[in-house]
Amino acid sequence: MKKIINAVEDVERELVEGFVKADPQRVEKLAAGNVVVRRQRKQGKVALVSGGGLGHEPAHLGFLGKGMLDAVVAGPIFTSPSPRLILEGIRAVATEAGVLCIVKNYAGDRMNFEIAMDMAREAGIRVEAVVVTDDVALSEDATEAGRRGVAGTLFVHKLAGAKAEAGGTLAEVRAVAEKTIANVRTMGMAIAPCIVPAAGRPGFTLAEDEMEIGTGIHGEPGIRRESLKNANAIAVELLEKILADLDYRDRDAVLLVNGMGATPLMELYIVNNFVQEYLKGKGVRVFHTLVGNYMTCLDMAGFSLTLLRLDDELRELYEAPADTRFFHC
Amino acid sequence: MKKIINAVEDVERELVEGFVKADPQRVEKLAAGNVVVRRQRKQGKVALVSGGGLGHEPAHLGFLGKGMLDAVVAGPIFTSPSPRLILEGIRAVATEAGVLCIVKNYAGDRMNFEIAMDMAREAGIRVEAVVVTDDVALSEDATEAGRRGVAGTLFVHKLAGAKAEAGGTLAEVRAVAEKTIANVRTMGMAIAPCIVPAAGRPGFTLAEDEMEIGTGIHGEPGIRRESLKNANAIAVELLEKILADLDYRDRDAVLLVNGMGATPLMELYIVNNFVQEYLKGKGVRVFHTLVGNYMTCLDMAGFSLTLLRLDDELRELYEAPADTRFFHC
Repeated sequence: MKKIINAVEDVERELVEGFVKADPQRVEKLAAGNVVVRRQRKQGKVALVSGGGLGHEPAHLGFLGKGMLDAVVAGPIFTSPSPRLILEGIRAVATEAGVLCIVKNYAGDRMNFEIAMDMAREAGIRVEAVVVTDDVALSEDATEAGRRGVAGTLFVHKLAGAKAEAGGTLAEVRAVAEKTIANVRTMGMAIAPCIVPAAGRPGFTLAEDEMEIGTGIHGEPGIRRESLKNANAIAVELLEKILADLDYRDRDAVLLVNGMGATPLMELYIVNNFVQEYLKGKGVRVFHTLVGNYMTCLDMAGFSLTLLRLDDELRELYEAPADTRFFHC
Repeated sequence: MKKIINAVEDVERELVEGFVKADPQRVEKLAAGNVVVRRQRKQGKVALVSGGGLGHEPAHLGFLGKGMLDAVVAGPIFTSPSPRLILEGIRAVATEAGVLCIVKNYAGDRMNFEIAMDMAREAGIRVEAVVVTDDVALSEDATEAGRRGVAGTLFVHKLAGAKAEAGGTLAEVRAVAEKTIANVRTMGMAIAPCIVPAAGRPGFTLAEDEMEIGTGIHGEPGIRRESLKNANAIAVELLEKILADLDYRDRDAVLLVNGMGATPLMELYIVNNFVQEYLKGKGVRVFHTLVGNYMTCLDMAGFSLTLLRLDDELRELYEAPADTRFFHC
């Protein structure tokens, strides 16, 4: 394992503290642990809480701020934070308008957020949750409930965050989050695995001419291994799955070409070059494009494609102001 | 070589076209070749032109826009664009107020920009250039003129861009660019080399326990090879060189912790966590911090540290509005 780190046991603390020190006007860390909150919060608005295991930077810390998240609760790398820590995050930002938790669909995260929300309700806090399930990789052998939450989570932060900032009620903000989840699909791949520092070796290995299709964001293998194809052929494989799952034809959509952490931007732009033409050919109107590292998997090399289908309401929320470290509009 | 690309000979074209397709409201590509210009340019302001070889994404394309660059001329990966292409870029954005070219200090770039500027002057265009020399790695065995231009170039774009946007004359914009260059220093390192697609193999190799100190941004080896140290010790080594070269004590500074392309943000934040404390101990006041991929070297793993020393004028220009894909304030 070759990494620029200090002691393995200090990785999470140093990462979170290093993030806060880079943006001290905007965010602060709670004394209770790896919970980071937005400093300037709008009085009385619905508060948005997200989080999960670390290792997906800039998600979720980089989306703290105006128009997006109010608190991020960070567990160890790829590991859910404890219910106690999640409760600290909920408490720190709760308002009378209530709290919405945005949870990626992993068993540990769901369980711990549920327990924390029960504790918060006992303390008189109004809190609800949505579960993000945008990964279509597992659609063949799983029900909708089995789908993982991956890069599309960014859009749930953005659109629910805009609704909350605009003064939406908890029910309204939750409805926007659920509508976003219903309209977003992602599919990913990798040409090289990541190494979790505490493990010291990769979760899978790939030969020089192999790739994994349908990878998630926790270093696990994908749904199948294939011979490495060129960028355009890989993109077709991912897009076919996404477009088969939701009808984007003659609709506006936001496209996210997301790097997994060790993928140079050069490769992501080469992918984008093809994807734009392919989507045009399929009658999908790309309204806005994001290319870069948004939801990563440590030092995995690969990318995912996410398509968010828009209607007038979602488009307006997408364009609303947001002021965070890694998403600005 | 394992990359997400199509044919090697199409890499540059697909990269540039893919960038433009991601941001069509803001930028457009000239028919003449890989020259990308900002669409909405302020009438009569000094135009800023930069560029050089590709492979440093998001530099320089990602800094096109309000308050920064007006044109970027892109050569093949790590190779200077031709004088003819540079001339196209200058012509496309030239105004009566003149054009300032921001050139990183490499022999090929300097020569080709000089030839292009001579041709532009013959065509009646007022054009001058500054040469960025922020890399302190070569200070031991080279004169100031021998220093390379690396990540600090971002700040030259930003501050000269702000001066131009505010209506500065060519002499004033050039003076700001030169003052920025005089106040910015960078030092970099790598734990893994990059692979130029057309070469198909790395420019150097490193054992599992080795690192290169003083690397540039073109895949060449650094100034020396050492045993891999922990993140904090590496940071000290880079910072000592920077702080010995320019006096930052009791001054405000902008810190850039720059990833080289394949370095996960986790590692950059761990570095930042230490650097902030170290600089505090040395009496340097960090006014603002950037952490991320700004000036990369394809898929090299490593990072560089850049410190820009501020006075009142530079601080004001740093905080002026900028609206580009990868730098926003």
